[in-house]
Amino acid sequence: MAFTAPTADFEKRIRASFAKQSFMAGIGATLSRVTPGEVVLDLPFRGDLTQQTDFLHAGVVTALADVACGYAAATLMPVGSDVLSVEFKINFMAPALGERFNAVGRVLRAGRTLTTCAADVWAIHRGETKQIAAMLATMMQVTR
Amino acid sequence: MAFTAPTADFEKRIRASFAKQSFMAGIGATLSRVTPGEVVLDLPFRGDLTQQTDFLHAGVVTALADVACGYAAATLMPVGSDVLSVEFKINFMAPALGERFNAVGRVLRAGRTLTTCAADVWAIHRGETKQIAAMLATMMQVTR
Amino acid sequence: MAFTAPTADFEKRIRASFAKQSFMAGIGATLSRVTPGEVVLDLPFRGDLTQQTDFLHAGVVTALADVACGYAAATLMPVGSDVLSVEFKINFMAPALGERFNAVGRVLRAGRTLTTCAADVWAIHRGETKQIAAMLATMMQVTR
Amino acid sequence: MAFTAPTADFEKRIRASFAKQSFMAGIGATLSRVTPGEVVLDLPFRGDLTQQTDFLHAGVVTALADVACGYAAATLMPVGSDVLSVEFKINFMAPALGERFNAVGRVLRAGRTLTTCAADVWAIHRGETKQIAAMLATMMQVTR
Repeated sequence: MAFTAPTADFEKRIRASFAKQSFMAGIGATLSRVTPGEVVLDLPFRGDLTQQTDFLHAGVVTALADVACGYAAATLMPVGSDVLSVEFKINFMAPALGERFNAVGRVLRAGRTLTTCAADVWAIHRGETKQIAAMLATMMQVTR
Repeated sequence: MAFTAPTADFEKRIRASFAKQSFMAGIGATLSRVTPGEVVLDLPFRGDLTQQTDFLHAGVVTALADVACGYAAATLMPVGSDVLSVEFKINFMAPALGERFNAVGRVLRAGRTLTTCAADVWAIHRGETKQIAAMLATMMQVTR
Repeated sequence: MAFTAPTADFEKRIRASFAKQSFMAGIGATLSRVTPGEVVLDLPFRGDLTQQTDFLHAGVVTALADVACGYAAATLMPVGSDVLSVEFKINFMAPALGERFNAVGRVLRAGRTLTTCAADVWAIHRGETKQIAAMLATMMQVTR
Repeated sequence: MAFTAPTADFEKRIRASFAKQSFMAGIGATLSRVTPGEVVLDLPFRGDLTQQTDFLHAGVVTALADVACGYAAATLMPVGSDVLSVEFKINFMAPALGERFNAVGRVLRAGRTLTTCAADVWAIHRGETKQIAAMLATMMQVTR
């Protein structure tokens, strides 16, 4: 679906908010694309982000998907608002094995208060890209 | 519900597996209680684990709940098995504001292959304890 | 958690709304208890409510849990409001085999706009009661 | 994604199983398309399937999405197996207002035991088609 951002500076605002997320900086995630209703995050694998069998931790996979959904929703929100995760659900489809990971968050439906989003998380392993997780989320617009 | 662990050394095995989760060590989480069908995690607040408004990141809250559910399920699994998150859903009920956080994961029903779990996450802020999130999860037993 | 209903006639309002749900009447569900923040539904088994292996259909189990959550949330809402299901997640823990089914919906946290609820569904089979499903849901207050 | 059904008679088997679902017959749902990894259900509106404000009941919307996911998964399962809903999550995106409803279930990833599926539910109202719900589900293969 094609969405229109309510303000021209939406990307600047999203990037400024993302830069304040200490946890995203700490794990080494970056915002690789910000378009109206869709946001892509990128994360290089790091040994300190793993679970007991050396795959990327499900909590990290989930954090990427959550942030991608949240900022996808935020691209469509007015100046002076902030985005809050109401809830999300994630299915893990394959082991999180790879050198890089991408989370693509997109808006399914933008309401006045609530926005329904979905995210797919992909692992890039030896040149192959494989979907490892799918998220379905509810985001809420709050006034700062 | 009262569960019985299949082996006497279940706590030792859970703690050994948890110790291999680099990500849990990296964020400073510890296993504070391991009983059959129930596991409690503890996390002190740290400034590098926050989102854009300085609360604990939803991804970190979720990681705690996921790990608490996973190991709660694992307490009831036989030697030589490993636990995998199939999927989970989490509702955020209040801002993650506090000096410490606890995630209590518990088994609702243990099947041969799949275990249904729930987790509650609590924030301890100025001496008050408040529930900030609720998770409902499916864990899978895999043979190593 | 103990909740207080905002109006004395909350039960009367819930029962009047439930009576308008043609689908609940059609499947034979009744409201067996309405207290502040908690609602219980009752459904006798019927052969026309089954799936391919003659258990109660997952869609019917889910409908009971959804309605129990929705009205549990509604008990705490002001006069002139209506309740809407934003989303829910349900885990099926055992086959829906029984002569009667109960869904117990309860409020976990009531916010201004959104209410987080949980429901358990129980099957009563040959005098034994067994949990068959667990739901975690988000309900929204809307003004009629 | 393109899937291949393991047997040539997959559609016949799905339709035979669907025909045994008394609840689907009772609400008037039909299987309008069965292809490998994707199933479409069709339901005409009926006044006895409504909630308190005369929209299609969320429980009915959910039942359609669940069945569409289940049979989408079943198209890829071997002869002698049956499909079970492990869990699902559904987001309601718009009021279920329409003369007809379609649920499109599709496989995201088919594993040996578990299959991850998604479904979209659409309302057809005065010639316009609108998405009213999105589901993310886990289905399990069981041997009859």
